[in-house]
Amino acid sequence: MRYLGIDPGLRITGYGCLELPASGLRIGQAPTIVEAGVFRLGKNGPEPGKSIASVSARLLELDADLRDLFDRVRPDVVAVEALFAHPKHPATAIVMAHARGVILLNVRRAGLPLVELRPREVKKSLTMWGAAGKDQMQRAVQARFGLAEAPSPPDVADAIAIALCAAERGELRA
Amino acid sequence: MRYLGIDPGLRITGYGCLELPASGLRIGQAPTIVEAGVFRLGKNGPEPGKSIASVSARLLELDADLRDLFDRVRPDVVAVEALFAHPKHPATAIVMAHARGVILLNVRRAGLPLVELRPREVKKSLTMWGAAGKDQMQRAVQARFGLAEAPSPPDVADAIAIALCAAERGELRA
Repeated sequence: MRYLGIDPGLRITGYGCLELPASGLRIGQAPTIVEAGVFRLGKNGPEPGKSIASVSARLLELDADLRDLFDRVRPDVVAVEALFAHPKHPATAIVMAHARGVILLNVRRAGLPLVELRPREVKKSLTMWGAAGKDQMQRAVQARFGLAEAPSPPDVADAIAIALCAAERGELRA
Repeated sequence: MRYLGIDPGLRITGYGCLELPASGLRIGQAPTIVEAGVFRLGKNGPEPGKSIASVSARLLELDADLRDLFDRVRPDVVAVEALFAHPKHPATAIVMAHARGVILLNVRRAGLPLVELRPREVKKSLTMWGAAGKDQMQRAVQARFGLAEAPSPPDVADAIAIALCAAERGELRA
């Protein structure tokens, strides 16, 4: 059973795919990381970062990157975080929602079940603290999976944490 | 030259496609309406309106509806409004941004130039008033195109107004 976590962004979208043993996950055991990384969007474009031409070009890159990823890792379940309007950064949430729309479209097109998790739930499941910072999440993922280094950039660690939280909950809300 | 205006939403997305005469548009003259209408999304789904399964299903419907529309009306330019965080309705802007992401993806995939207009600019170009209400926009579109009835729902009138504003500006920002 493969769980793919995705952390959307128009500059960087993180992803992490975990494989659970067929016998199920035991307490304290970590699933295997099949593949984790980031899509860096807009790297080919000469267009400035916030124009509508740049946004649409990045969405097209993201769409292609997601198709390739799904083909490669063949997830059984995809997990994303719920997106709330952040009172201090409303524009960031709106830009992120454009990318999230393309992600949800791809998941649905692939016919995969979607799990939505609250950001606090993801942080808490890994660090026992719902308001953990980015570096704490990176170190917690490193420790949990016994990695030589902390996953970087933070978007990879977040995506792995999302996949882990969904796998541990093992309950599909789709 | 065909201008397609789109007014995004996850429940209803309005669209209006206008054709300009080859000789160009004269002052006071209205372009021809090729086709205008709405996509009503989620009509087939038993899923409640705000779950992530419902949102992703609607995005997939929107994606298919857009492909069909582009094939049918073959626009030369697509115009949308800029999306701002509304302090009173931040959640609405975020939901709308999911649909807008799928629209921008489709426009880019079709290789079409994109024009982004400020909502005030669209309202002002048709009613002389940047804060015109929905019914004013419907009546202004009816008058300008000499229609027997006001376009309904308001999303159609808004989409026609967006296309008209882009056509009159005749300047591509892409």
